[in-house]
Amino acid sequence: METTTEAYSPTERTRVRRAPARATYDREVVHGILDAGRVAHVGFVREDQPIVIPMAYVRDGESLLLHGSTRAGVMTALAAGTPACATVTLLDGLVLARSAFHHSVNYRSVAVLGRGREVRDEAAKRRALDVFLENFVPGRLAEIRGPNPQELKATLVIELPIEEVVAKQRTGGPIDDEEDMALPVWAGVVPVGLQASAPIACSG
Amino acid sequence: METTTEAYSPTERTRVRRAPARATYDREVVHGILDAGRVAHVGFVREDQPIVIPMAYVRDGESLLLHGSTRAGVMTALAAGTPACATVTLLDGLVLARSAFHHSVNYRSVAVLGRGREVRDEAAKRRALDVFLENFVPGRLAEIRGPNPQELKATLVIELPIEEVVAKQRTGGPIDDEEDMALPVWAGVVPVGLQASAPIACSG
Repeated sequence: METTTEAYSPTERTRVRRAPARATYDREVVHGILDAGRVAHVGFVREDQPIVIPMAYVRDGESLLLHGSTRAGVMTALAAGTPACATVTLLDGLVLARSAFHHSVNYRSVAVLGRGREVRDEAAKRRALDVFLENFVPGRLAEIRGPNPQELKATLVIELPIEEVVAKQRTGGPIDDEEDMALPVWAGVVPVGLQASAPIACSG
Repeated sequence: METTTEAYSPTERTRVRRAPARATYDREVVHGILDAGRVAHVGFVREDQPIVIPMAYVRDGESLLLHGSTRAGVMTALAAGTPACATVTLLDGLVLARSAFHHSVNYRSVAVLGRGREVRDEAAKRRALDVFLENFVPGRLAEIRGPNPQELKATLVIELPIEEVVAKQRTGGPIDDEEDMALPVWAGVVPVGLQASAPIACSG
């Protein structure tokens, strides 16, 4: 597949009007955020009602891969090509300012807009599930039992092209008003992040 | 306000059909998940396209409170009462099974469906922002400068009633097939969670 380092093109739907300095269409930034995340919040519309579902995902080149049961409503909706939005957010810090108004959070997020399509080809589907597992725990693929035909049949794999996409991020400390700088209150950032702790072996 | 410990009532839109054992409408569970989260992914529909935006939130009794700039598209849409879905997800662990198929994640999530309404009354709006700040960093409210009239005017506060709501969760280790139990592969859970690290004081 041809690869490019060019930025994505903003569209009417992804152009950020408020606080545009926080938005970027830089391909490397978008990929970096997507590669650091574990869970996408996938929105779709059912009878005029937006539904937002948390889903594991992986980036595979210029696609987001999603998978799930053939019986899951979100999966059949995505397979049917319903308009979707997959948003990935990494919370990086709590920003404590000297005024209530300037409190904020540091974060990185990416929103991918578009329509998914089902990966039907069996080899492509197997490969997609391998990409998933390799991303989940690198190296594990070689150790575990791969999907059997029945499991493969029970699984839908969706690819959502990363084409109409925007990243937003905030970094750094609080931006206080000049007249608040002398207030006797701590100001700064409390960094937060997803951390793993000691694995717990299965007793079974 | 009258309080109740009764479970929420499932609706056609929140009744979970697949893996119903993971779903609950228990009020205490719903509140506990909402109180442990920091970011909601809020979905709404703009010209048939679902849009999912990460937003800070706080639970205030039987409402989710959201706030933001009067110029933010999501805020004006919510203030106009557009159908919305706010989903909060806590990732608790990576579940490593002996087969690819049974890999999973442990998580807790809540989806609140409904329509927001703007908090217009000034006293109620001030109180809502206080609830926000007190939740953000307990005790901080007494130390910082509160919102001035101009800041208050630039801020929209939305309340989304917690009425049509469902929680979903997975806990515990992998559930492997009997025939895979003898495979020579580590199986278990890698716990993950959002952790704070040492605060960084603002140099300004």
